[in-house]
Amino acid sequence: RLALPIFASDALSSVAYAPQELLMILMIGGLAFLSLAPWIAACVVILLLVVMLSYRQLIKAYPSGGGDYEVARKNLGETAGLTVAAALLVDYALTVAVSIASGVDNIISALPFLNEWRVEMAIGFVVILVAVNLRGVSESSKLFALPTYIFAGSVFLMIVVGFTRMLLGDAPVAESASYTVQGESLTQAAMVLLVLRAFASGCSALTGVEAISNGVQAFRLPKIQNAQKTLVAMGGIAIVLFAGLTALALTTGVHYAEKPCDLQGFADCASTPQRSLIAQVASATFGDGSFLFFLVQAATALVLLLAANTAFNGFPMLGSVLARDGYAPKALNTRGDRLIYSNGVIILGLVAIGILLVFQANLTQLIQLYVIGVFLSFTLGQIGMVRHWLRVRRENGKTPGSMSGLLINGLGASLTLIVLLIVTVTKFTHGAWVVFVIMPILGLLMAGVHRYYRDVAEEIRVDPEVRFGSDGDLAVVLVGRLDKPTLKALDYARAAKHDRLIALHASIDPERSAKLKAEWDALDLGIEISCIPSPYRDVAIPVSKFIKRDRAENGPEVITVYMPTYIVGHWWERLLHNHRSRQIQQRLLLVHGVTVSLVPWLLDSSEMIYGRRSRPLPGDARRGLPQRPQPVRPAGARVSNGAMRLPEGATPPPREPGADTVANTTVPDPDSPTK
Amino acid sequence: RLALPIFASDALSSVAYAPQELLMILMIGGLAFLSLAPWIAACVVILLLVVMLSYRQLIKAYPSGGGDYEVARKNLGETAGLTVAAALLVDYALTVAVSIASGVDNIISALPFLNEWRVEMAIGFVVILVAVNLRGVSESSKLFALPTYIFAGSVFLMIVVGFTRMLLGDAPVAESASYTVQGESLTQAAMVLLVLRAFASGCSALTGVEAISNGVQAFRLPKIQNAQKTLVAMGGIAIVLFAGLTALALTTGVHYAEKPCDLQGFADCASTPQRSLIAQVASATFGDGSFLFFLVQAATALVLLLAANTAFNGFPMLGSVLARDGYAPKALNTRGDRLIYSNGVIILGLVAIGILLVFQANLTQLIQLYVIGVFLSFTLGQIGMVRHWLRVRRENGKTPGSMSGLLINGLGASLTLIVLLIVTVTKFTHGAWVVFVIMPILGLLMAGVHRYYRDVAEEIRVDPEVRFGSDGDLAVVLVGRLDKPTLKALDYARAAKHDRLIALHASIDPERSAKLKAEWDALDLGIEISCIPSPYRDVAIPVSKFIKRDRAENGPEVITVYMPTYIVGHWWERLLHNHRSRQIQQRLLLVHGVTVSLVPWLLDSSEMIYGRRSRPLPGDARRGLPQRPQPVRPAGARVSNGAMRLPEGATPPPREPGADTVANTTVPDPDSPTK
Ligand SMILES: [K+]
Ligand SMILES: [K+]
Ligand SMILES: [K+]
Ligand SMILES: [K+]
Ligand SMILES: [K+]
Ligand SMILES: [K+]
Repeated sequence: RLALPIFASDALSSVAYAPQELLMILMIGGLAFLSLAPWIAACVVILLLVVMLSYRQLIKAYPSGGGDYEVARKNLGETAGLTVAAALLVDYALTVAVSIASGVDNIISALPFLNEWRVEMAIGFVVILVAVNLRGVSESSKLFALPTYIFAGSVFLMIVVGFTRMLLGDAPVAESASYTVQGESLTQAAMVLLVLRAFASGCSALTGVEAISNGVQAFRLPKIQNAQKTLVAMGGIAIVLFAGLTALALTTGVHYAEKPCDLQGFADCASTPQRSLIAQVASATFGDGSFLFFLVQAATALVLLLAANTAFNGFPMLGSVLARDGYAPKALNTRGDRLIYSNGVIILGLVAIGILLVFQANLTQLIQLYVIGVFLSFTLGQIGMVRHWLRVRRENGKTPGSMSGLLINGLGASLTLIVLLIVTVTKFTHGAWVVFVIMPILGLLMAGVHRYYRDVAEEIRVDPEVRFGSDGDLAVVLVGRLDKPTLKALDYARAAKHDRLIALHASIDPERSAKLKAEWDALDLGIEISCIPSPYRDVAIPVSKFIKRDRAENGPEVITVYMPTYIVGHWWERLLHNHRSRQIQQRLLLVHGVTVSLVPWLLDSSEMIYGRRSRPLPGDARRGLPQRPQPVRPAGARVSNGAMRLPEGATPPPREPGADTVANTTVPDPDSPTK
Repeated sequence: RLALPIFASDALSSVAYAPQELLMILMIGGLAFLSLAPWIAACVVILLLVVMLSYRQLIKAYPSGGGDYEVARKNLGETAGLTVAAALLVDYALTVAVSIASGVDNIISALPFLNEWRVEMAIGFVVILVAVNLRGVSESSKLFALPTYIFAGSVFLMIVVGFTRMLLGDAPVAESASYTVQGESLTQAAMVLLVLRAFASGCSALTGVEAISNGVQAFRLPKIQNAQKTLVAMGGIAIVLFAGLTALALTTGVHYAEKPCDLQGFADCASTPQRSLIAQVASATFGDGSFLFFLVQAATALVLLLAANTAFNGFPMLGSVLARDGYAPKALNTRGDRLIYSNGVIILGLVAIGILLVFQANLTQLIQLYVIGVFLSFTLGQIGMVRHWLRVRRENGKTPGSMSGLLINGLGASLTLIVLLIVTVTKFTHGAWVVFVIMPILGLLMAGVHRYYRDVAEEIRVDPEVRFGSDGDLAVVLVGRLDKPTLKALDYARAAKHDRLIALHASIDPERSAKLKAEWDALDLGIEISCIPSPYRDVAIPVSKFIKRDRAENGPEVITVYMPTYIVGHWWERLLHNHRSRQIQQRLLLVHGVTVSLVPWLLDSSEMIYGRRSRPLPGDARRGLPQRPQPVRPAGARVSNGAMRLPEGATPPPREPGADTVANTTVPDPDSPTK
């Protein structure tokens, strides 16, 4: 039953900032506006309830984990789907930024001397999350469950204690209760706008509710029911915590301003950080510096970090879903590919760091953007669900279930659309326009990728006109130096029994080439080495010319170019190998009729990783192979040109017939049947 | 005759900061110390002369362009060579940082309102240089020569005008002439140390003299003589400019302090930037805001940017020399490789930006590090030359030429060693220790690369025990989907006439596999498709198992796995293709006996780059091939399994015997001779 705490951290952690943002915006109009706070909070609670029930329906109808994106794409078409996808990408980046900014604020509320390193701390936490996710964490670890439980428990305890103390006549009083705010004198319209802005900020309490709909597949069987139950439990807890914390904050008289020096009575406003709402309430309720105060702050910070961490898990998953549908590079669909996953984690981390730097980890500004992205996907998802129910009722008849679904999602769609409009109108100039610039760019990128894949699929589709008919078979072994990998490539080329086989050397330095030829001849390999001149120190051009000339003479033959390739054990070895041969390979692949055969050479360093090397030395060769029956070999098999002989002086190692290694080191008879 | 201005920018631009740094350090002791300035400047001039003559010898003895690195490595051994190489790497990064920091200071001296964007401007210039070098610039462009000439000419004019005015009794007076400095009261030892520090800072005038010795190959024939002449001309100009500017600065009474507010009388020291020495002299001589003042400042800034640019050219060249000797990844030796060159430019740019950020573009701090690196390579190069002459005299007899060479380089080695010791002692605590941390790290890295390549060379060396003897020939065409690239791979596999050919499909989704099999059979390709189950959605594992089983039955056969690979036209397309197949390829290469044959498929987008596509459509196919004689074909050639037939319903396109395209689209006879 760990599903709740893991998925809930995203949604529950919103309680750490939603009440504070709601009250803060209201207080711009002066303390009198605070009397509206309970009503606005009630609206948020109702909205939270409706959205929760809406997602309950969505989980049932689309349990595959595609969430709003899938619903919008299937019911509203590609544009809506891509809009949601773009919104979700923005959402993931902002989940990290917002959660960490709030987390740092709460840490500073407990340990004020850290204030001067606010932005640095935020970036540091992103780096830690990236590092943790690069190393790989087990999501199901019980450690992850603890902070969520402690957070919900301690905040709940705080609410109970706070109200109990109030009932006993010992109401807790916040440190900022005595501060006042010089309200701006507002027109009627501005007052309405202010109330709407406060509501919009309070709606940040809803962020993260969608998380479960993206993760239904992670639940135990029966997945849908378990996901639904978790959603309802999470929603219930979120409502209790949000409502309770807002009420307690109003009771204790917390006064919180966007700019601390707007608070009249806050003497050290320039140097001292303003404590977060939750810290002020905890300090008032449990006593400043008490164990429970620190517990609340620690749990709040941890649950916020956990919420940031969920984005690091969700981001690659969304990428994989987008790749499956052809909107993102297919490589992202390779689940379990560490490199891809790592790149996703690093990209998300860098984007989050960029956002934190640009906005200087300012929670209020970040939340503007965050709410837009989240409510955009809410709205499109709910509208998609409405279309879904309409279709279901058209196709399967008007059942009561579909009716209630239609009603719930219709209500959800209407309310989230209204909030989206409010948020957009009230916050567009407060930074939300950034989202409206970035999202179309993301959407166009994804649409471009999709169109590209579609074009390529059309390009490679088999059609009746397609005709292939290569003929002729030439093998070319490129010889740069005389070394074991080259000899192995020659051996493979021989074993593949091509019609013609040429050992080709592009001669850059005549002196070195003459030396190579002498060494080659001394080995008595049974095949001449052909040298072609290579002006301009380039190998690919003369080899290409050689191949083209040969094809001009011999028709549409296939030329198999054998090239050794190194297999290495460490990532940094890649920097030291294969660069030049990969370059030659890329250019030869552009020549008609060429296929490049990569003959692997496993360097010693690769042994520790792959458990074996390419060491065809006697007794050491191909050690990893299972024992197998030795192919029947006619007595007195002669040395053919299919195998290599050693120079006369060399002493051949002892042979043990029947042993596995010998199968590879003895001289085979190319005429013996292999089939 | 463009060699002078291009190589000279590095050395001549040093005049822009060396006099300023010399006077600034002296003034720490108070204005009285300025009376020592002429003597210290004279020492710097003598040193410059000796070093110039020393390099004249070095150029003649080692004209290949390896410079100090080559001299040290050949005469003093690997450790000395690597020390110089590390010093030069540091030198390149600091040439960029110092030149740009000084350039920005001089721009601000002309346009003070830019002061608040000092660091940003410096970083901006690095970015511009990186961009320019990524696009590629022609070094020989006459545009590059202009700033050097204008700089040398205008500074020379300034010196002449300044002293003429003085002789006429109208001596120019600098704006800071009236400022005084509260000298620290120093002990005797501290005073000596201060003078030595001033001398060490003045020695920054020598930085860049070594540039020509690294670029002898870029000169016209006779290279050595031209390089030597250029060096002497450059040295002469540098001496005149350095001595003249220092003298004129003393005459005009320029007072320059590390911290502007140490200057008593400089009222706006906190907000107004201190103007550079050259700007103050130009302003005093030509009049503040005059055309010639702006010309001097513009030329100074441009020549400094040009000096920074030389590092972007020299850095990849040093990398190539190091790669040639096995101390850096061999890939760096691929001259003219844009990717490698681009990476070098980007790395140098990032390092320079990092340095500028860490030191906040502070010229004085940067010069500490710069002088160390430069004099370390000076000293080791000169000591190497002494060893060189000793060997020459031992081997070829004691000629007068070798005697004078020995004397000059001996003097150079002694003096530069003394300066190196002074710089190290006086500046170690002023940041120079950073160099002594970074250089050993770079040296160890290079030594590690060298050892690695040595070990690999030993590993792949052909020895008498080596034995290869693969036997048996199986081709496997991996079929993921039925598309043209796969059919082309199958066609190539057939043309190569393997003993056995298998079309292998790893079945992840039974439904899709059944559909594929039906489509495959409908095409009537003459070869069955073999499906193997693929649990865990993985292709490489079941294919590996299949191959291992086959080898267990059939002995040490070579298995050629044919895989289509996409050739694309844009860099970003690489993100969208080949990822999965490269993954499979990498893992199959680990299986014994496997060689992977890459069959290229040129996407349409590649046409614009490579001039052709892989379109084997009639009339369109292989258009790029030259006309060639059609191979003789026996009449009534039958359709063999070496070619593909179409489904019955399809209408084959009209054939034009003899045309090039038909050679690839007609049905070939595998039995006809191809040799
Ligand atoms: K959230
Ligand atoms: K979220
Ligand atoms: K073959
Ligand atoms: K063959
Ligand atoms: K320089
Ligand atoms: K330099």
